[in-house]
Amino acid sequence: MKLLAIYGSSRKNGNTEALTKIVLQNLDKNSYNEIFLMDYQIKPIIDQRHTSTGFQRINDDYDNLAKELLNHDAILFATPLYWYGMSGQLKIFIDRFSQSIRSQEYDFKEEMKGKKIYLVIVGGESAPYTALPLVQQFQLICQFLELDFRGYIIGKGVKPLEVLEDEESILQAKQLGKKIKTDLFK
Amino acid sequence: MKLLAIYGSSRKNGNTEALTKIVLQNLDKNSYNEIFLMDYQIKPIIDQRHTSTGFQRINDDYDNLAKELLNHDAILFATPLYWYGMSGQLKIFIDRFSQSIRSQEYDFKEEMKGKKIYLVIVGGESAPYTALPLVQQFQLICQFLELDFRGYIIGKGVKPLEVLEDEESILQAKQLGKKIKTDLFK
Amino acid sequence: MKLLAIYGSSRKNGNTEALTKIVLQNLDKNSYNEIFLMDYQIKPIIDQRHTSTGFQRINDDYDNLAKELLNHDAILFATPLYWYGMSGQLKIFIDRFSQSIRSQEYDFKEEMKGKKIYLVIVGGESAPYTALPLVQQFQLICQFLELDFRGYIIGKGVKPLEVLEDEESILQAKQLGKKIKTDLFK
Amino acid sequence: MKLLAIYGSSRKNGNTEALTKIVLQNLDKNSYNEIFLMDYQIKPIIDQRHTSTGFQRINDDYDNLAKELLNHDAILFATPLYWYGMSGQLKIFIDRFSQSIRSQEYDFKEEMKGKKIYLVIVGGESAPYTALPLVQQFQLICQFLELDFRGYIIGKGVKPLEVLEDEESILQAKQLGKKIKTDLFK
Repeated sequence: MKLLAIYGSSRKNGNTEALTKIVLQNLDKNSYNEIFLMDYQIKPIIDQRHTSTGFQRINDDYDNLAKELLNHDAILFATPLYWYGMSGQLKIFIDRFSQSIRSQEYDFKEEMKGKKIYLVIVGGESAPYTALPLVQQFQLICQFLELDFRGYIIGKGVKPLEVLEDEESILQAKQLGKKIKTDLFK
Repeated sequence: MKLLAIYGSSRKNGNTEALTKIVLQNLDKNSYNEIFLMDYQIKPIIDQRHTSTGFQRINDDYDNLAKELLNHDAILFATPLYWYGMSGQLKIFIDRFSQSIRSQEYDFKEEMKGKKIYLVIVGGESAPYTALPLVQQFQLICQFLELDFRGYIIGKGVKPLEVLEDEESILQAKQLGKKIKTDLFK
Repeated sequence: MKLLAIYGSSRKNGNTEALTKIVLQNLDKNSYNEIFLMDYQIKPIIDQRHTSTGFQRINDDYDNLAKELLNHDAILFATPLYWYGMSGQLKIFIDRFSQSIRSQEYDFKEEMKGKKIYLVIVGGESAPYTALPLVQQFQLICQFLELDFRGYIIGKGVKPLEVLEDEESILQAKQLGKKIKTDLFK
Repeated sequence: MKLLAIYGSSRKNGNTEALTKIVLQNLDKNSYNEIFLMDYQIKPIIDQRHTSTGFQRINDDYDNLAKELLNHDAILFATPLYWYGMSGQLKIFIDRFSQSIRSQEYDFKEEMKGKKIYLVIVGGESAPYTALPLVQQFQLICQFLELDFRGYIIGKGVKPLEVLEDEESILQAKQLGKKIKTDLFK
C-alpha cells in the first residue's frame, strides 16, 4: 500500500507542509508520494451534469492528478485553515471529483471506495475548535465516497514554522505518522 | 441601504440562482446589485503574509469586487452545496479577504464590520443536515469579521430548476426576502 | 399513521410548547398524542451493558413511554435549547434507549427503524446558529437508529410566549405542520 | 491553582474514568479534586426565570457542587458519549447553571469567567467524528461563560477498560495531563 499526500497550501514551506513532513518522516521514502496542488493548473468545475453533452474534457492537470489518487490506497489531505475551511486550491480540486464520478475512463466511486483517508489541518490558536466544521465536511465526503476516514490532526501555527514549536501539534503528527505506517502494512 | 447578491455557482440559471431570485423578487430593483463570480477572473490567494514585501497586487478582478462589497451594507452569498461546502469559486473569492485585510487602500475589517449577511445554499435531499457545517463556517467568518449574520436558507434541488418545485424551499426564500426588505429599510 | 409529540420542557406553557402547538394545530386531534416528560418519573440510565446480569428493570415510567414511542409511526421531539443542547429531561429519556435496545420485550432497533422524526427547538436570538450542534446530534441519532429525520425548526423566544411574536418561527412551525400532515397521510 | 475533575459517568470504573485517571496521574494528588456526579442527588432544572418569585431553592446536592466549581480555577469535565452527547447526568448538572446565574449568593458569571476548561469524552470507534457536535456545544458554553477552553480529547473504548488498549487515546490523555500540569503552575 502506498500513501499520496496532497498539499492544498498556497505557498511552499509553510506550517501545513512542515507539520505534514513530521507525519511522513517515519515512513519509508518509497511508501508515499507527494503532490503540491499549487504546482498544477486546476480549473474550477463547471457544472455540466445536466447539459446534453455532459462534462466536457477540460484541458488542465486535473485528470492526471485524479489518476494519481486512484493509484494510491491511502490519501492524506493537508490544508491550511483558510476562513474556517479548506484552502480554495484544495476545494477546487475536490469539486472536480464531480466530473470524475461521471467519467467514462474509470469507475471513480468504485475505485475510491475503501481508501484510507487522513487529514492534516493547520490554523491559529483556536483551530482545535474552529476547524471542526471542516473535519465534519471531510467526514461527509468520506461517507459519500465510502472512504475510510482514519484520522485527523489540527495543528496550531500562524507565523512561519510556528507549528514546529507547538508540542501538541508535533506529538499529534508523530502519532498520526505511526498510525499511517501501521495502516500501510496491514 | 443596498444589498449585494454574490453568486458562487459554476453555471447560469441553476437551482441556486433560481432560489435566490425568489429571495430577491420582492425587493425593489434598485435596492440590490448582483455579481456572478463566474463572470470574473479571480485567482486563488497566495499567502504572502510573511514575506517581506507583503501581499503583491494581483492582476485580476478581485480588487474591484472587494470594493463592491464595501459599497453595500448587506451581502447575500448564494452557493450550491459542492462536496458539503461552498463552491470552489466562492471559496477562492473569500480566501482573498486575507489580502484585503492587509490592504493599504481601505480598512477592510473596519468597513465590513456590522454589514448584514444572508446565506442561500442549495443542495440535495439531505442538504438541511449536510449543509450545517457550511452554515457553521459562515458563522465563524461572520464572528471574525464582526458581521451581522441575519439568516440562511437551505434549499433542495438537484435536477434543473427542481428547487422551484420544493414548496419548503420557496417559502423559506420568500420569508428571507421579506426579512431582507425589512432590514434594508431599518 | 399517528404522531407522538414529546415535550422535553421543564415547565408548562413555555415557548417550546407554544411553538409546537402551532405545528400541531393543523392536524386532526386524533392524529397525534402528546407526552410531557416532566409529568413522568424517568431515572438517568445506569450503564449495565457489561454487567453479567445486563440491564436491571428500573421502577419508573420509562418503559411505558418507550412503548408509546413504538406505538407511533412519527415522533416529534420538542425541546428548549438549554446550554446549547437538548434539555436534561429529554437527554435522560433518550439515554434510556440504550436499555431498550437490549430489552427482551421488543426489538427496539427493528421497530424504531424508518419512523419519521421531527424536531422543534426554541432558543434565544442566536439559536439558528447555536442550535446546530443539537440538530447534528439528532441527525447522528437518526442515522444510528435508521430513523427518517424529516425536518427541524429552530424558533426564537426567551421571554414568556415571545416565540409567538416571531414571524419567522411561526411560519416555520406552520410549514412543519403542513409537512407532517402530508407525511401522516402518505 | 487547583483542578476539579467532574465525572458524568453512570457507573464507576468505566472507560471514561479510566482515561481521565491517566490524564490525572501526572498531577500532584493535592492539585486536584474529583466529583462523581452519580454519587450526588441533582434534580433536573425547573425553568423559573419568568415566575414572579424566580428560582426556588431546591433541596438537593447541586448548591454544594456549584460552590466546588467556584472554588477551583480549572475544571475537567469527563463524560461518556451517550447518544452523541454528554451523559444525562452531566447535562442535568450543567442545566442548573441557569439557576446559579441568577443566584443572590454569588456572582456565578463573574466568578466562572476565565476558568480553564478541559473535556474528556469517551465513545466508540467513530467517536473522533461523532463527538464533534458535543465539542462544539462545550465551545459555545465556554464562549457564553467566558471560560478558557484549553483542550479536549476523544477516547475510544466500549468494552470494559478497552480505552486502555487504545494507544492513541492513552497518548492524548498523557498529553492533556502535561498541559494541565503546565497550566496549573502558570
